[in-house]
Amino acid sequence: MTTEPALYPSERLTQVTEAVRVKGIDVLLLSPGPDLRYVTGYDAKQLERLTCLAVPAQGDPFLLVPQLELRAAQASPAGDLELDMVTWGETENPFGIIKKAMGDPHYVALSDRMWALHVLQFAAIFPTASQHLASAVLSPLRIRKSAAEVAALKEAGDAIDRVHAGVPNWLRAGLTERQVGAKIAEAILAEGHVQVDFVIVGSGPNAASPHHEVSDRVIEHGDVVVVDIGGTMPSGYCSDCTRTYAVGTPPDDFTKYFDVLYTAQEAATVGVRPGVTAESVDRTARRIIDDAGYGEWFIHRTGHGIGLESHEDPYIVEGNTTPLQPGMAFSIEPGIYPGPHGARIEDIVVCTETGYQRMNNAPRELVIV
Amino acid sequence: MTTEPALYPSERLTQVTEAVRVKGIDVLLLSPGPDLRYVTGYDAKQLERLTCLAVPAQGDPFLLVPQLELRAAQASPAGDLELDMVTWGETENPFGIIKKAMGDPHYVALSDRMWALHVLQFAAIFPTASQHLASAVLSPLRIRKSAAEVAALKEAGDAIDRVHAGVPNWLRAGLTERQVGAKIAEAILAEGHVQVDFVIVGSGPNAASPHHEVSDRVIEHGDVVVVDIGGTMPSGYCSDCTRTYAVGTPPDDFTKYFDVLYTAQEAATVGVRPGVTAESVDRTARRIIDDAGYGEWFIHRTGHGIGLESHEDPYIVEGNTTPLQPGMAFSIEPGIYPGPHGARIEDIVVCTETGYQRMNNAPRELVIV
Repeated sequence: MTTEPALYPSERLTQVTEAVRVKGIDVLLLSPGPDLRYVTGYDAKQLERLTCLAVPAQGDPFLLVPQLELRAAQASPAGDLELDMVTWGETENPFGIIKKAMGDPHYVALSDRMWALHVLQFAAIFPTASQHLASAVLSPLRIRKSAAEVAALKEAGDAIDRVHAGVPNWLRAGLTERQVGAKIAEAILAEGHVQVDFVIVGSGPNAASPHHEVSDRVIEHGDVVVVDIGGTMPSGYCSDCTRTYAVGTPPDDFTKYFDVLYTAQEAATVGVRPGVTAESVDRTARRIIDDAGYGEWFIHRTGHGIGLESHEDPYIVEGNTTPLQPGMAFSIEPGIYPGPHGARIEDIVVCTETGYQRMNNAPRELVIV
Repeated sequence: MTTEPALYPSERLTQVTEAVRVKGIDVLLLSPGPDLRYVTGYDAKQLERLTCLAVPAQGDPFLLVPQLELRAAQASPAGDLELDMVTWGETENPFGIIKKAMGDPHYVALSDRMWALHVLQFAAIFPTASQHLASAVLSPLRIRKSAAEVAALKEAGDAIDRVHAGVPNWLRAGLTERQVGAKIAEAILAEGHVQVDFVIVGSGPNAASPHHEVSDRVIEHGDVVVVDIGGTMPSGYCSDCTRTYAVGTPPDDFTKYFDVLYTAQEAATVGVRPGVTAESVDRTARRIIDDAGYGEWFIHRTGHGIGLESHEDPYIVEGNTTPLQPGMAFSIEPGIYPGPHGARIEDIVVCTETGYQRMNNAPRELVIV
């Protein structure tokens, strides 16, 4: 009899405690966010009230929670761990509780997304400590996805593929980007995400603005439209996929560089395998676009890691010499933005033992609606 | 001829620059989030790539943006300000650019929500500076809402009231909290929000867990259900409203304390006027609940400020002696959670020149569905 491997296995807390010791950290402090969820399965919101997992090198880890959130914390997967939960009431000072438990650590690691509001209070209670990022511990663990995590990313990829399959129904001349974006946001939820992370509908000249979201621009016949969308699944894992659409026949010069882009995205993807560096994936896409004369219009990196965050390690960018390993998951999303239009194609890809696996399989060709 | 006052007036940047000088801050650094949006109108996402408004005491403010986001920044209200935009490319170090422009400041203020990822990098480039929270500058400005901001909060309140009006259609025995929550999330978007901030559907014993979200518990006949929901409007302003529902006739002991809660919430609300302290609003609600013998089950503060954040100053809590002023906006949301059920009633209330104005007007009585 086999049991399915857990998405948030209870061994993680032990692994992290071990890594804290090895790195010479006195205490690791994780506020709500992807690091806390990765280690404990607890999906808490970051708020002004301090929730914090403390993992000391010596002694037992504990989770500090506001009293009113104790039941929610206990009901989460963290409730199944061997983990003390310590509560604080509305008129208590939670930092005082951590100070009393931890004394005077010298080397403190904080979750990368912890708010300055809390970072500066930890600096105040540990005045002789140096502060460091928890990613030194968490990134090496989070960067290689387990089979269960890859399955969660595939589920997310399938969901966003279904949304892209619906885009031709909603994208038409006469509607604004905002109207089309609202339909897409509804579909992101309807297809199983619990949260819409971003909806970019960049039409006409806005297609040339990579981080455009939506505007009141009315989509016109002949427009090219970049649709880059993503959300978070109940598992906590994220989707992110870009396709480029045309409303009617696109301009000739567009078709020329779209073909180059398609080739570059494909070449970068099929080059993925263990041992290849992150930057070399970027270079593969960039060289093809450069050689075709569009290099100056490819103004961003080729991709970013993805998992519990939309953007995480490994970044697919010049200078990142990390060799790819099985389980690493990241986007491959070159773009060309010469104006007055632009294009991007993006898939999430996982490095396997022997090559790559795509999490997105919606057609990559230009979709004419 | 009158023109409508702007929600994000261009004078704010000047006001903030003035406050930076008065407070003796050398440079104020705002990463994406509510502070940046308040000052510039630019609604950017906080990501690993640094976007940062730098407001030095001497010299001109500038907005540092990743090159690929320049067009989005220019298209935002920040594009209409007298504000230099400085870009950095994917392989450049944005902190180096800030260091070069700022030299060696002694007193640096950072947005409260800035990630540790960036806080620690600012600590590294300004090794002799002390770091402080930007709320010292921003909170005194943000805490008093302008007429345009109150109108935006009212628009948000009306939208969430419409969602509560629909809850009786979706809440019924046999469905799970998650199923009901999904309907509510769709309605939050359909009624005009651009983002679902939270959906709490706490049924039966979960009604006694104030920060419960949704679960797979099947709602049963006789359940009490706390529904606490909120989202963000296109304006950037947030809604937040709680009503308590019963599926069929609730238990007698519940009805007894619900009446106490209703009275407490009403009394705290009608007591709002300029000069009354934040903590005294908490005390008004707490005294009524204490006197009725339920004090030990009211385990959280009475409320929190609201605006561009769901939770912001002023907090309605013992120890906050801030006197209310016209324009302050906050929740009044006492709760009683004795188990195996619980209740909460919440409205957003604005302090006016002479008293209070409610942003929520959905019926506060127990809704039996």
